[in-house]
Amino acid sequence: MSLETDKLKKFITEQDKIALTVDCVVFGYDEHDKELKILLIKNEVPQFLGMWSLLGDLMKIDETIEDAANRILEYRTGLKDVYLEEVQSFSHPKRHPLGRVITIAYYALIKISDYELNVEKLDLEAKWFNINEIEEMAFDHKNILEVCHKRLQERLKERPVGFSLLPKKFTLQQIQNLYETVLQTELDKRNFRRKLKNLGLLKELEEIETEVAHRPARLYTFDYDKYTEMERKGRRFSL
Amino acid sequence: MSLETDKLKKFITEQDKIALTVDCVVFGYDEHDKELKILLIKNEVPQFLGMWSLLGDLMKIDETIEDAANRILEYRTGLKDVYLEEVQSFSHPKRHPLGRVITIAYYALIKISDYELNVEKLDLEAKWFNINEIEEMAFDHKNILEVCHKRLQERLKERPVGFSLLPKKFTLQQIQNLYETVLQTELDKRNFRRKLKNLGLLKELEEIETEVAHRPARLYTFDYDKYTEMERKGRRFSL
Repeated sequence: MSLETDKLKKFITEQDKIALTVDCVVFGYDEHDKELKILLIKNEVPQFLGMWSLLGDLMKIDETIEDAANRILEYRTGLKDVYLEEVQSFSHPKRHPLGRVITIAYYALIKISDYELNVEKLDLEAKWFNINEIEEMAFDHKNILEVCHKRLQERLKERPVGFSLLPKKFTLQQIQNLYETVLQTELDKRNFRRKLKNLGLLKELEEIETEVAHRPARLYTFDYDKYTEMERKGRRFSL
Repeated sequence: MSLETDKLKKFITEQDKIALTVDCVVFGYDEHDKELKILLIKNEVPQFLGMWSLLGDLMKIDETIEDAANRILEYRTGLKDVYLEEVQSFSHPKRHPLGRVITIAYYALIKISDYELNVEKLDLEAKWFNINEIEEMAFDHKNILEVCHKRLQERLKERPVGFSLLPKKFTLQQIQNLYETVLQTELDKRNFRRKLKNLGLLKELEEIETEVAHRPARLYTFDYDKYTEMERKGRRFSL
């Protein structure tokens, strides 16, 4: 092993070494208020004490970055098997006041209805914020949030990631509300429904909405099997 | 500064520290042979001595990861302002024989005609390979190559990155050849030309090809200004 270590030292000196963290932008969609929300925690690093920050942690020596992202999410939300996507690294030499720390940013998509915010269980205070009401954040987390929000907006048009933010059964109007909220734009109803239909990926159910004041609408689910088949054939999702 | 260091030690211990590298998959398109090529170098790490690997290096303490990727590319190819995109991190705990080394993968797109392979200038042997002829590579570089190739294939359909692989002036047939080569599929000529026309992003020049055996075809350039304008309006590139 000492030979290994000698070789390692030749290639990698102590000065080259850095700390690596993972930061997750956890998106949730609040259907009632038509708001895109993100889950933040109160920061504990002295320079940013009391400020809000993304869910993050140091990567452990025996895990992959993706393992670390899943671990952080499960620890903070209790949820497993959450939609998770690596976005990019943030590596400005002065981004962390405590030294050279590079972070890999992920975004996660959560069905808010699946998730009970259990504050007592956590060491740090956690809270959902409307994405538009966040002004200041610790570190470069505001920038990370903006980059991840932009990525989510792109993905929504190119991949069926939006369905990870909706309940399992949804109405066509619920999809349109979600798209309008995340993309921050109004969409033409007729045009949007035509596109939805052309996708051919929604399964119409023998069920309608309940507990609504207006005339109850038809419920649908997203056909993930058909989507996998479509992808395999090289056809693209576009909405 | 000692207070800073103390705080740093509280959050980041020496065991948490790792080495971070950047690896670049440099793609070039060989128009003559209709081949997608990648530029590789002979490896110098003892365990993989003599094997081919991606262009990579340790990130320096005072640069960003993107700076490092640009530095490596310029050092190895002499080229600046190359199209460069971060793809993802590779962080398996056992991926590097010399210790805990995480790498961030980028792909770069080069116009082969712009680039003279200057072997003498370099400390390591460098060579272009047809992407289909590469069987074994050092580290997990074969896997990184495959992930980056897949990303390029996706991007080609969603962004005008392909034009970074073509000469500044090109024929419609040259675009189709490039798409067929990278996507590894045949495309219907009429359908592809209709899509190209619908893009509205090609500028027809008052020039035709020279030095060809067949009837010379019209030359075009890609209109990046118009594309920027189109993106600003939220319209999407699709080919």
